[in-house]
Amino acid sequence: MRELKIFSGQANPDLAKKICRHLHMEPAMISLGKFPDGENYCKLDEDVRGRDVFLVQSTCPPVNDNLFELLVMIDCCKRASAERITAVIPYYGYARQDRKDEGRVPITAKMVANLIVRAGADRVLTMDLHAAQIQGFFDVPVDHLYAAPVLNEYFSERGMVNEKIVVVSPDEGSIKRAVGHGKRLGAPLAIVDKRRTSALEVQQSTIIGGPLDDKIVLMFDDMISTAGSICGAAKLVKESGAKEIHIACTHGVLCGPAIDRLREAPVDSIIVTDSIPVPEEKRLPNLVQLSVAPLLAEAIKRIHHDQSISELFRER
Amino acid sequence: MRELKIFSGQANPDLAKKICRHLHMEPAMISLGKFPDGENYCKLDEDVRGRDVFLVQSTCPPVNDNLFELLVMIDCCKRASAERITAVIPYYGYARQDRKDEGRVPITAKMVANLIVRAGADRVLTMDLHAAQIQGFFDVPVDHLYAAPVLNEYFSERGMVNEKIVVVSPDEGSIKRAVGHGKRLGAPLAIVDKRRTSALEVQQSTIIGGPLDDKIVLMFDDMISTAGSICGAAKLVKESGAKEIHIACTHGVLCGPAIDRLREAPVDSIIVTDSIPVPEEKRLPNLVQLSVAPLLAEAIKRIHHDQSISELFRER
Amino acid sequence: MRELKIFSGQANPDLAKKICRHLHMEPAMISLGKFPDGENYCKLDEDVRGRDVFLVQSTCPPVNDNLFELLVMIDCCKRASAERITAVIPYYGYARQDRKDEGRVPITAKMVANLIVRAGADRVLTMDLHAAQIQGFFDVPVDHLYAAPVLNEYFSERGMVNEKIVVVSPDEGSIKRAVGHGKRLGAPLAIVDKRRTSALEVQQSTIIGGPLDDKIVLMFDDMISTAGSICGAAKLVKESGAKEIHIACTHGVLCGPAIDRLREAPVDSIIVTDSIPVPEEKRLPNLVQLSVAPLLAEAIKRIHHDQSISELFRER
Amino acid sequence: MRELKIFSGQANPDLAKKICRHLHMEPAMISLGKFPDGENYCKLDEDVRGRDVFLVQSTCPPVNDNLFELLVMIDCCKRASAERITAVIPYYGYARQDRKDEGRVPITAKMVANLIVRAGADRVLTMDLHAAQIQGFFDVPVDHLYAAPVLNEYFSERGMVNEKIVVVSPDEGSIKRAVGHGKRLGAPLAIVDKRRTSALEVQQSTIIGGPLDDKIVLMFDDMISTAGSICGAAKLVKESGAKEIHIACTHGVLCGPAIDRLREAPVDSIIVTDSIPVPEEKRLPNLVQLSVAPLLAEAIKRIHHDQSISELFRER
Amino acid sequence: MRELKIFSGQANPDLAKKICRHLHMEPAMISLGKFPDGENYCKLDEDVRGRDVFLVQSTCPPVNDNLFELLVMIDCCKRASAERITAVIPYYGYARQDRKDEGRVPITAKMVANLIVRAGADRVLTMDLHAAQIQGFFDVPVDHLYAAPVLNEYFSERGMVNEKIVVVSPDEGSIKRAVGHGKRLGAPLAIVDKRRTSALEVQQSTIIGGPLDDKIVLMFDDMISTAGSICGAAKLVKESGAKEIHIACTHGVLCGPAIDRLREAPVDSIIVTDSIPVPEEKRLPNLVQLSVAPLLAEAIKRIHHDQSISELFRER
Amino acid sequence: MRELKIFSGQANPDLAKKICRHLHMEPAMISLGKFPDGENYCKLDEDVRGRDVFLVQSTCPPVNDNLFELLVMIDCCKRASAERITAVIPYYGYARQDRKDEGRVPITAKMVANLIVRAGADRVLTMDLHAAQIQGFFDVPVDHLYAAPVLNEYFSERGMVNEKIVVVSPDEGSIKRAVGHGKRLGAPLAIVDKRRTSALEVQQSTIIGGPLDDKIVLMFDDMISTAGSICGAAKLVKESGAKEIHIACTHGVLCGPAIDRLREAPVDSIIVTDSIPVPEEKRLPNLVQLSVAPLLAEAIKRIHHDQSISELFRER
Repeated sequence: MRELKIFSGQANPDLAKKICRHLHMEPAMISLGKFPDGENYCKLDEDVRGRDVFLVQSTCPPVNDNLFELLVMIDCCKRASAERITAVIPYYGYARQDRKDEGRVPITAKMVANLIVRAGADRVLTMDLHAAQIQGFFDVPVDHLYAAPVLNEYFSERGMVNEKIVVVSPDEGSIKRAVGHGKRLGAPLAIVDKRRTSALEVQQSTIIGGPLDDKIVLMFDDMISTAGSICGAAKLVKESGAKEIHIACTHGVLCGPAIDRLREAPVDSIIVTDSIPVPEEKRLPNLVQLSVAPLLAEAIKRIHHDQSISELFRER
Repeated sequence: MRELKIFSGQANPDLAKKICRHLHMEPAMISLGKFPDGENYCKLDEDVRGRDVFLVQSTCPPVNDNLFELLVMIDCCKRASAERITAVIPYYGYARQDRKDEGRVPITAKMVANLIVRAGADRVLTMDLHAAQIQGFFDVPVDHLYAAPVLNEYFSERGMVNEKIVVVSPDEGSIKRAVGHGKRLGAPLAIVDKRRTSALEVQQSTIIGGPLDDKIVLMFDDMISTAGSICGAAKLVKESGAKEIHIACTHGVLCGPAIDRLREAPVDSIIVTDSIPVPEEKRLPNLVQLSVAPLLAEAIKRIHHDQSISELFRER
Repeated sequence: MRELKIFSGQANPDLAKKICRHLHMEPAMISLGKFPDGENYCKLDEDVRGRDVFLVQSTCPPVNDNLFELLVMIDCCKRASAERITAVIPYYGYARQDRKDEGRVPITAKMVANLIVRAGADRVLTMDLHAAQIQGFFDVPVDHLYAAPVLNEYFSERGMVNEKIVVVSPDEGSIKRAVGHGKRLGAPLAIVDKRRTSALEVQQSTIIGGPLDDKIVLMFDDMISTAGSICGAAKLVKESGAKEIHIACTHGVLCGPAIDRLREAPVDSIIVTDSIPVPEEKRLPNLVQLSVAPLLAEAIKRIHHDQSISELFRER
Repeated sequence: MRELKIFSGQANPDLAKKICRHLHMEPAMISLGKFPDGENYCKLDEDVRGRDVFLVQSTCPPVNDNLFELLVMIDCCKRASAERITAVIPYYGYARQDRKDEGRVPITAKMVANLIVRAGADRVLTMDLHAAQIQGFFDVPVDHLYAAPVLNEYFSERGMVNEKIVVVSPDEGSIKRAVGHGKRLGAPLAIVDKRRTSALEVQQSTIIGGPLDDKIVLMFDDMISTAGSICGAAKLVKESGAKEIHIACTHGVLCGPAIDRLREAPVDSIIVTDSIPVPEEKRLPNLVQLSVAPLLAEAIKRIHHDQSISELFRER
Repeated sequence: MRELKIFSGQANPDLAKKICRHLHMEPAMISLGKFPDGENYCKLDEDVRGRDVFLVQSTCPPVNDNLFELLVMIDCCKRASAERITAVIPYYGYARQDRKDEGRVPITAKMVANLIVRAGADRVLTMDLHAAQIQGFFDVPVDHLYAAPVLNEYFSERGMVNEKIVVVSPDEGSIKRAVGHGKRLGAPLAIVDKRRTSALEVQQSTIIGGPLDDKIVLMFDDMISTAGSICGAAKLVKESGAKEIHIACTHGVLCGPAIDRLREAPVDSIIVTDSIPVPEEKRLPNLVQLSVAPLLAEAIKRIHHDQSISELFRER
Repeated sequence: MRELKIFSGQANPDLAKKICRHLHMEPAMISLGKFPDGENYCKLDEDVRGRDVFLVQSTCPPVNDNLFELLVMIDCCKRASAERITAVIPYYGYARQDRKDEGRVPITAKMVANLIVRAGADRVLTMDLHAAQIQGFFDVPVDHLYAAPVLNEYFSERGMVNEKIVVVSPDEGSIKRAVGHGKRLGAPLAIVDKRRTSALEVQQSTIIGGPLDDKIVLMFDDMISTAGSICGAAKLVKESGAKEIHIACTHGVLCGPAIDRLREAPVDSIIVTDSIPVPEEKRLPNLVQLSVAPLLAEAIKRIHHDQSISELFRER
């Protein structure tokens, strides 16, 4: 059987190392960096000829640099005659630009898919895409993992299940996700409904469902970016009498005013995964980072050995 | 300027005729049919060399026949040297198979997009795709229209606006759509929340939001297929005290038990468009069919004349 | 060595089962069907990751449904990471639309080839294409089998060889085929020449070659569709004094008035293969169905094991 | 309207000049030749930016040089920003390698089609392809002309029609063609049937149909290559009592022993077209060369002006 | 005639403005920027449907951001139905990674070409590519301009021609360029030959050719990046007795230690063009920036009007 | 492991045989030739199904025939289901047409790359490309070997190293190559600088660097075509006092007046490799042909076994 090689880009080398540790191997040697003019440099320091290569690179900020590094790594492996190249993209950036809501805008998430395939990727392994339809942006096989079990397990282990908790969807777009977690955790559902009153154009949010009094409220999202929406929802939930509030997401983008908002928000804990690295300065005391490395490692192992992934991840 | 030609497939010739009437032209002559062995037959009876060709064909049931006829028409026009071929697909079938929810299933909506482009379509004009991301399944330009203004206008003209009505989302998947209509019509929102109780596995639906007493309830969906979900919701809404119930959708697929269910359901009117033809035997007394022909005609005219479409359809 | 998996579409599951029996294996599990709106449903019930997959599906009537099901199965296997996908198409529909005889018609046989490849097929195994050039419509490898040995063997075993018989070509298009069978069976050749007299436009057929008196006449074609041409030829042959008439083809499409015509025709036996299933109601008493399953099974085995096929099927 | 430019390769510049004369224009200036190492040289001496370019080049012997020159001209025009490039290939070489008759051979006719398109041709104009299915080897539009009317007119003008003549097919492969000419000329049909006797392996040809006594016999083929088959047929026809024998083809390849054979054969005249130039040394006294330039010129004019070609060439 | 629209990316808006001024038009309106998470934002504020669109964007540092912005702009214009998209890339970044000098490295310059075409560019207009072969990395038409006449004119106007000057090539890679300028300016040539002595691995440079005493020395390069090589050469040239030293390049990348080195170097003037913007802090007193806007504007005008460019830029 | 098969085209069968001898195997059986009309004939006489196939074919003169034969062999292997096809092209013809130096010319080297890939080659093994950027003309992996070590070893073994010799670059284009050899052989460098005096347009060459008195001069080039440039340089070098002159190249094209010029030139020996066969009549007494077969054989072996090539050929 052809050999497995895992290379890490510079986006999240710690995650790659953890994945490799689960697989009892070392990340393969690669020289990555930038020339003085900012152009990416890439040289494989190990032979990949005929190997089964996995390239671990989230396209988190700085997104263009990370994405382009991934493309360069793919080109490099293709020209170095890798047998198969799997782009492992725990966080798929540009995913929110997945449709034309208005005229004259790009569908960048599709273009990124096209670029990855054009560069030479044979397949993709990713996690919690902002929209599941992005799988269809690719014609190569995509294995799409869910971090939900990791998050649910965290809460279950802490006894946050069933009637003790309410799963609150912070906006309309997250309802399906909230329903899923609610079912797994046996919890009732409530929804924050935001709208502007026509007269004065003041936003007025209400909670549909409940009551939340003395409840532990969990709020889930696929990503927390500037944290505006979820912090607003947390405030409203708190005002509605919730005892504790925990917010959880797969992808902790945490950009712009996110950290300031989260510090101010009435939130007991913030759960993210390591699909995106959280730098020291963003590690709030109540921030918990769970690892998706075991999940990714198991998926890589199964892909490499042609074993079923659907068996493993049937439970969303 | 190159000449505009509109050909109609056999899926909805009446719609094509209406579109042409709005454009003060006749549908172009084409011979379509089947050989005795069921293979599609196609012959253009007018020259398309250098012309700007639009092929109107919904991929409604019988979906495979309609889709394949569209593909054959495209191949035919391409080989006959049409300058540009626009597939006008008012109803885009297979749209619900737009992602892999489980392992080992196809993403048929993407495959269909690939087939249409492979056959030779240069662009696509469609309406109310089940998921907006399907636009990104194409690399050719897609103009995506919304029938929502047509539906909203219908209710507005009948005074069904503001506090008199409640827009009820029949399930979690339709909430975004419900919010959109609610905002346009100035109406409050409620949601039907279906779930199974874990103990006895009995489905129990509740309405989040309300109250509905003595309200006119409007429920919207992109399509009504077997009508199971929306008829169930209508029953619950009725039990919750609604005075009138009107359900509306762009695409009246109305297949399987749909007509029987709708006949039984406590529904005052059913509004569909002519994106899919409704045969005589399905025309319930309370079924109203609105026409999207003016919308499609205007879009075709603007595409042909290189005029902006976004200006026209800015209002969703 | 990667595992062999054979899936059957719904076009001819019996043939697939026979093929599998020859290979001492079971057809792989797959769920196929239609949703209430007529859209194809497909789910692989076995893992195909890294497997060598063969999809058995004739594109016989209902041709669009069978073709689309094949495409969906291909997409499904591709996204489920099959190592290699071979479309096994014993009867390749739309083959007669293989060129533009007149302006403004499609070349559907080529378009179908493009669709199959676009969906993701890596190779094709087919039999008695209406025109051998259709192989060239594909850029992927095509293995093209001939059922002629199966048919010839049938007649040889019954002593229908050499001077006892005459091979009659029912029209100009089938002469090459008639020549081939004639050579194999050591038989003389005659041709039915159809033409219209210019004055009255009455068709008048004559037999070139002969004599046929007291001869056993065999007539071959690649397919019998509406059976008009071959039944007309049979009548003429009978009038020319033939003692027995047997007609044989690979693909028994038998559509439209075929069965009625064959019932009336002065034909002693009708030989078809199981490349297309013959339903109960079409099984005339003098219809014999030979199986190409051993041929297809052997081909699949050899393709799977990278063994030469040309060695096997050198004899046309 | 964008300007029309016609460039000629070195295969048949006389034909290109005649085509241009019919269109009242000059062939565009181009420098073509070979470097000392035999590599093709090409430089356009006129601007083609935004022009509608036609490249006239038969791929007759020396076929590889002529084909490669065509490819280089296409690349040249593409990079020089021609608006549209039509490869005008009056004689399409490699056409007889259009299918795999045996294992492990190429389908060169398809590969050539792929190369022409890959180099950048937008469309193809050709004539009397050896097999009509070769049109389907292209996905770009192909306009396929027939020289048959030119040949038929030649014979009609000389009174060789109806019962005075017999159209004889020189082998089984040409029967369809013979039928076509027979119908146009109102003439009866006969066929030369070649076969080997099994015992002594001696070839024995017979004529099916007739009688030929005192008849003028016309034999048609798409091309005369080494002239072996047609000269053999002529001898047999002569022995069968024919008064005159005329043979005609579109493409006078006339290679190898062709001229010697034709000089010896009992043939009254040999009709070819100028799809392939006939050098002085091959111009037998009884060889007549008809011009297809008017046909090609009219086709080019119509393609350029987006006028229907099917109208023009409906009569095969 | 379809309308011309020029959009500018954020890499060098001043150049785009100058180009537009030469064409008596305004740059088209576009909203470009970044979301808080660093993802590019793009919205065309003018309609491009059916327009002839030029996108001006050098891929200078920050190269990945500028390149990705270009790709997004292309996708945006393509989906908004632009008739033709020309990527105007005055400085083509990543050009030095144009071949594999060693194993296991990418050919990034090719990959970038692939990405630009994959995104949807129909053609490219660029200037002084690091290697002319990069034109061949594209299959779409590339118009490749030279800034040499702009530089030569600058020196000619100042009387720096013929025997007064010596053109010195700063290294082996620039000799061809030096020869070209030398010929245009009528000047003799000298070459800086760098090598390491094997014993002590000390680099020792010598000047081949000369003498340089009391000469005005001009040194040319396609780009000045970190300025190490050219500053070293300048020092050596100075030590060899040169009276004045002027260095000139098309692309003033000026990254890393470039400005410090240039400030220290014995260089009388530094000539760059505006293919890359030079920010205020890099504007050394002896730095002169010439504009290539007239050149690019003329090229755009000619491309738009289908006029020959080779006529204009024949003089390298 | 899949089996290795090496087929040889007709360009250099001796080289292929030598390569096979190094690998202790026989070239695979193939029938190659031409039909009477000059069309290439190809039939594999061994099965390649699932094999790892290498096709050895230099595209030396007659370049179009050799190139087309290579393309046909590739098509043949692809359709015969080879697992992997590597085009081994020791001499890559058309390499000098690698860029547009002027308007309206092709980039034939790129087009050839496109044709090779379009025909179906999975990878390329070549040697001393005229420009290294041609690697980037391919998106499939290219292994690019250098014959320099073979040439250097020849001179080293004969003691032609260090101060005894001078490496002279025959023109500006070869300086990089001369530098490389100079470094390996420890030799100083000189350059022949050709230019035309402006007044009388007489070419006047001078040698930059030196002195050459009593030195052994080595001159290297990638190819010797008509030998004009290098023979001119040799004459000048001789006049400059060189004791011995040896010229060496990888590719001995030796076309047109090359042999006459070399016979006359003051050259002590001419070293070429067997990348191109040298026919008897061109074998001058002082011509030495070194073999690159061991190099190619080792590369093929390593590619077949997925072993690193960069390790082997690190030394240029």
